[in-house]
Amino acid sequence: MNPPTEANKSEREEGTTFAPRFDASGLLTAAVTDAADGALLMVAHMNEEALRLTLATGIAHYWSRSRKSLWKKGETSGNFQRVVELRVDCDQDALWLKVEVAGDGATCHTGRRSCFYRILDADGTEPRLRHAE
Amino acid sequence: MNPPTEANKSEREEGTTFAPRFDASGLLTAAVTDAADGALLMVAHMNEEALRLTLATGIAHYWSRSRKSLWKKGETSGNFQRVVELRVDCDQDALWLKVEVAGDGATCHTGRRSCFYRILDADGTEPRLRHAE
Repeated sequence: MNPPTEANKSEREEGTTFAPRFDASGLLTAAVTDAADGALLMVAHMNEEALRLTLATGIAHYWSRSRKSLWKKGETSGNFQRVVELRVDCDQDALWLKVEVAGDGATCHTGRRSCFYRILDADGTEPRLRHAE
Repeated sequence: MNPPTEANKSEREEGTTFAPRFDASGLLTAAVTDAADGALLMVAHMNEEALRLTLATGIAHYWSRSRKSLWKKGETSGNFQRVVELRVDCDQDALWLKVEVAGDGATCHTGRRSCFYRILDADGTEPRLRHAE
């Protein structure tokens, strides 16, 4: 991403104009948390169309990098994400979605509530993963 | 990213081996929250070296995409991030860092605690940003 000019930078960081900075692949990063308790549920990406549909419907849409396709989260599982609040970061290349998850509440395709179910232990030797809870 | 084989997929998702999936640019996405109250502070990226240094020191290091350089967060401000817990997601391409911020506690270069200080309002007309609080 090219550095913006100083005037653009100030407006981008302090202003009220939404001017999302899609990366070289045309994507924004989205961090998704549970609106009720703040737990991080997933990290995903949005292209321009996914963002437009999210804003138009209030239901989170993403771009699947692995499947290379638009992805209405919950379309097969029923676990749609209703966007309670949407925030943008200082340089407008990342979004924070606070959501309510419908259906059985799972966000991860493994059936878990969050995709972040493993802790990385790295004290001393080789890093290892440990299942949380 | 190429889809992994089924055997690899199962080990990657359920196993205890840390096998991070760097993207085409050699990066993982990192969502960073305050270990005390869970607020999302920033979203950043790590290359292999940043990850290695983070694990070795317990202090968050990132890769700055705009500056194209390794970035020890807090090196100029003093607001280092001590990693309290590090989690990885199901397909191991994203990290969740729960951190304690040193110094005056600001994470954003604008001096704010979090980079996500603006809410995106999109009810009906053109999307607009609104400063939180």
